[in-house]
Amino acid sequence: MPQKSDPIVESPVYRQADGGVPHGFRTVEVDEELLGDIRELIHEDARISLLNILADLHPADIADLLENVDPDGKRYLVGLLSPHVAGDVLAELGESAREEVLSFLTPEKLTTIVSELESDDAADLVAKLPKPVADRVLDTIEAEEAASVESLLKFPKDSAGGIMGTEVLKVFSTDTVKTAIRKAREFARRGLQLDVLYVVDQRGELRGFLPVGDLVVEGPGRRMAKVMKPAVSVRADLDQEEVANIIEKYDLVSVPVVNDRNQVIGRITVDDIVDVIKEEATEDIERMAGLAGTEETSSSVFATSRIRLPWLLVGFFGEMLSALVLRSFQASLDQIIASAFFIPIIMAMGGNAGIQSSAIVVRGLATGEVHSGKIGKRLTKEAGIAIVNGIILSAFLFGVCAYWLGDTRFGLVAGLALLVVVANATIVGALIPFILERFEVDPAIATGPFITTTNDSLGLLIYFWFITLLYS
Amino acid sequence: MPQKSDPIVESPVYRQADGGVPHGFRTVEVDEELLGDIRELIHEDARISLLNILADLHPADIADLLENVDPDGKRYLVGLLSPHVAGDVLAELGESAREEVLSFLTPEKLTTIVSELESDDAADLVAKLPKPVADRVLDTIEAEEAASVESLLKFPKDSAGGIMGTEVLKVFSTDTVKTAIRKAREFARRGLQLDVLYVVDQRGELRGFLPVGDLVVEGPGRRMAKVMKPAVSVRADLDQEEVANIIEKYDLVSVPVVNDRNQVIGRITVDDIVDVIKEEATEDIERMAGLAGTEETSSSVFATSRIRLPWLLVGFFGEMLSALVLRSFQASLDQIIASAFFIPIIMAMGGNAGIQSSAIVVRGLATGEVHSGKIGKRLTKEAGIAIVNGIILSAFLFGVCAYWLGDTRFGLVAGLALLVVVANATIVGALIPFILERFEVDPAIATGPFITTTNDSLGLLIYFWFITLLYS
Repeated sequence: MPQKSDPIVESPVYRQADGGVPHGFRTVEVDEELLGDIRELIHEDARISLLNILADLHPADIADLLENVDPDGKRYLVGLLSPHVAGDVLAELGESAREEVLSFLTPEKLTTIVSELESDDAADLVAKLPKPVADRVLDTIEAEEAASVESLLKFPKDSAGGIMGTEVLKVFSTDTVKTAIRKAREFARRGLQLDVLYVVDQRGELRGFLPVGDLVVEGPGRRMAKVMKPAVSVRADLDQEEVANIIEKYDLVSVPVVNDRNQVIGRITVDDIVDVIKEEATEDIERMAGLAGTEETSSSVFATSRIRLPWLLVGFFGEMLSALVLRSFQASLDQIIASAFFIPIIMAMGGNAGIQSSAIVVRGLATGEVHSGKIGKRLTKEAGIAIVNGIILSAFLFGVCAYWLGDTRFGLVAGLALLVVVANATIVGALIPFILERFEVDPAIATGPFITTTNDSLGLLIYFWFITLLYS
Repeated sequence: MPQKSDPIVESPVYRQADGGVPHGFRTVEVDEELLGDIRELIHEDARISLLNILADLHPADIADLLENVDPDGKRYLVGLLSPHVAGDVLAELGESAREEVLSFLTPEKLTTIVSELESDDAADLVAKLPKPVADRVLDTIEAEEAASVESLLKFPKDSAGGIMGTEVLKVFSTDTVKTAIRKAREFARRGLQLDVLYVVDQRGELRGFLPVGDLVVEGPGRRMAKVMKPAVSVRADLDQEEVANIIEKYDLVSVPVVNDRNQVIGRITVDDIVDVIKEEATEDIERMAGLAGTEETSSSVFATSRIRLPWLLVGFFGEMLSALVLRSFQASLDQIIASAFFIPIIMAMGGNAGIQSSAIVVRGLATGEVHSGKIGKRLTKEAGIAIVNGIILSAFLFGVCAYWLGDTRFGLVAGLALLVVVANATIVGALIPFILERFEVDPAIATGPFITTTNDSLGLLIYFWFITLLYS
């Protein structure tokens, strides 16, 4: 409710020029200028102007906005949103901003918001609430909705059941197109998204699907069994990464989720899967870079440090092994100081070759292009690649030693050592992800300091063995 | 056409048990058993059995199958496919298998296949053909289709225009729902996917959109201007990664592509974007791991070696710098052999810290979470993280030196050097991706051997400076 009158601000910078769309949002760039205006309007308590601006924004842009204002600003702006919009905004907010907003919403307001959300978003939201608040919300919302939210909370967060929505338009295979249209209208009246309907038999078992749009082109008297298309479905316990692979492989826009009796219990839309794919890719990249958690842009310096430190420490103590390796060869190190010059190159080549082969296997396992059944074939191929690249690099090292140090004998030994180091690192790099997958550890962690550290110690060991052989 | 009679094979292993779906495909696992059966049937020239099996498979599974049989098998199987299915299969095939299949299709067959495809897939296919064959195909297909394929070929491959399809259902804002339904029926009669319609004004400018399914719930006499929803659109020259970010942010299932007069010239569906997101993530991971191209599981050993070798060579010559650094400090290296023990740890800590900070910035730039405008803020934060982690690691190194070597003075110097190395590497790691982006080079290449090599040389330089200071 407006508390004082203020002029309706026309801000040509972040409003789009063209004003043809009759109602609803525009997409805007949430930049410093818009943020400055918003902060000033909050400061002036200019509710009408803010309501006007917010009415024009997509929930995703409002979420962007909330991420960039202080706690008081968040509280003020959220107070202006209708429960429906607030729900969509909450679903788009990042982890830490969402926690902040949830902390100052009353259970009553939360209840209204949860009832406005589709079941999957509602379940996600309830899962984030402190237990007593969550229980209170579930007690207050409609029994039917509470039941569907509670059933969703039972599935693992990363499974098909954990990310599906329960709002599904189902029709019987014996229904006519006309009946299906009537059911679609009822479904739409409940404010639900109308895109695909699933055809089930009398036991609720999935028989097929039809885009709702196809209803307008089919004769009204035809049975659904005649017009439906065959459906690809997923089981509720399937991992979300597998669901993403299936949706990608078969170019689906949504996929029905079935229980073990093939009954439709929900569906996953591709927009949720897009988030999953991005999340999984980001997670893989973070793990490959040796980060022990998801770093948010908004995390504090100390929180970020905690995410990065664990693998650095693993690397630290791993490299102590390298120091021990060097110490055990102190005699030969002392003898020919020149061999120390090539410690960096031995380490770097082993490290790089290992990261390359492991990245290929890790990504292949994630996208389903590499199967653990083909481990022997993969390793044989990696050995081939390692030998080709190893020989080329070794030839260069031999050349450098012969030319720079004028010592062809040392060059030969150093070159041979490098060949063995590269071959070993390439194969170790390809092998470790398979082993980790066998033990159900995410293979992506392999490509971080793990492989680098292993290859550093092994590489130095190999190098100094060769050196020792030369001088003994 | 069958050449000899053979029994229709019922293979319960790769057919699903449930036979309720009236027509169309099942999804199957393309495993060794199915492959073995297929190879045997090809060998026996059992066309009817093969036709039966293929009729049951999704084009994506047929593509899987083709990837796993020899060239003769590919030729045989492709000969059994209808042009419509062959087109879908070609769109799903990997690069090298597709080239192989294209090489033994006649221009006539290619023309039939191209006319069956939607414009975006057709353009992709034509782009892969040798110039004379492509021209011949474009000369033979219908003029209208050739024009739309040729117009698509003009857009950069990675832009919105390059990945869009031109088959769009457009209705006027003055049309009634009834008229829109008639237009939808005509559209469907041409065999085109019916999901969303775009509302345009008399000049063809985008006004809004409506899911086709919504037509069944609206009153037939209502004007489209009243029932349409506001549409998010993208310009044809927008980079596909940006398109993916917009589709993800606003949870879209498809997005209309407009020219600079806001006229709808095509649309991009989310299934194409899912491929883009996976491709871009894979590309980022590959570049971060120091691979100079996309490695396919099917690439030969030498092809793969060519992809991996360039960055190894960059690393190689980069590490020659490290060797020169070590050589220039030969005196002090000679003096205290102990300092050589810690070369690996100095290099590894610098490398790991640099990879961590660069991975965060690279991924953030790709997903749009990090903006180059915020470079100062980002670097300040990285400096904070670097100091926190650097101090902890330095304390450990000091402890190790004091305890192991019994030399607290050396421990202090080595610890201080490590702190500076980690701080430097973290900031360099975060800075380089920003610089590369400024020069329009993909920041992902930074996180490979580039940063590692830079940090190795800089790290050793810093370390031995400190050592020299200690002993001078």
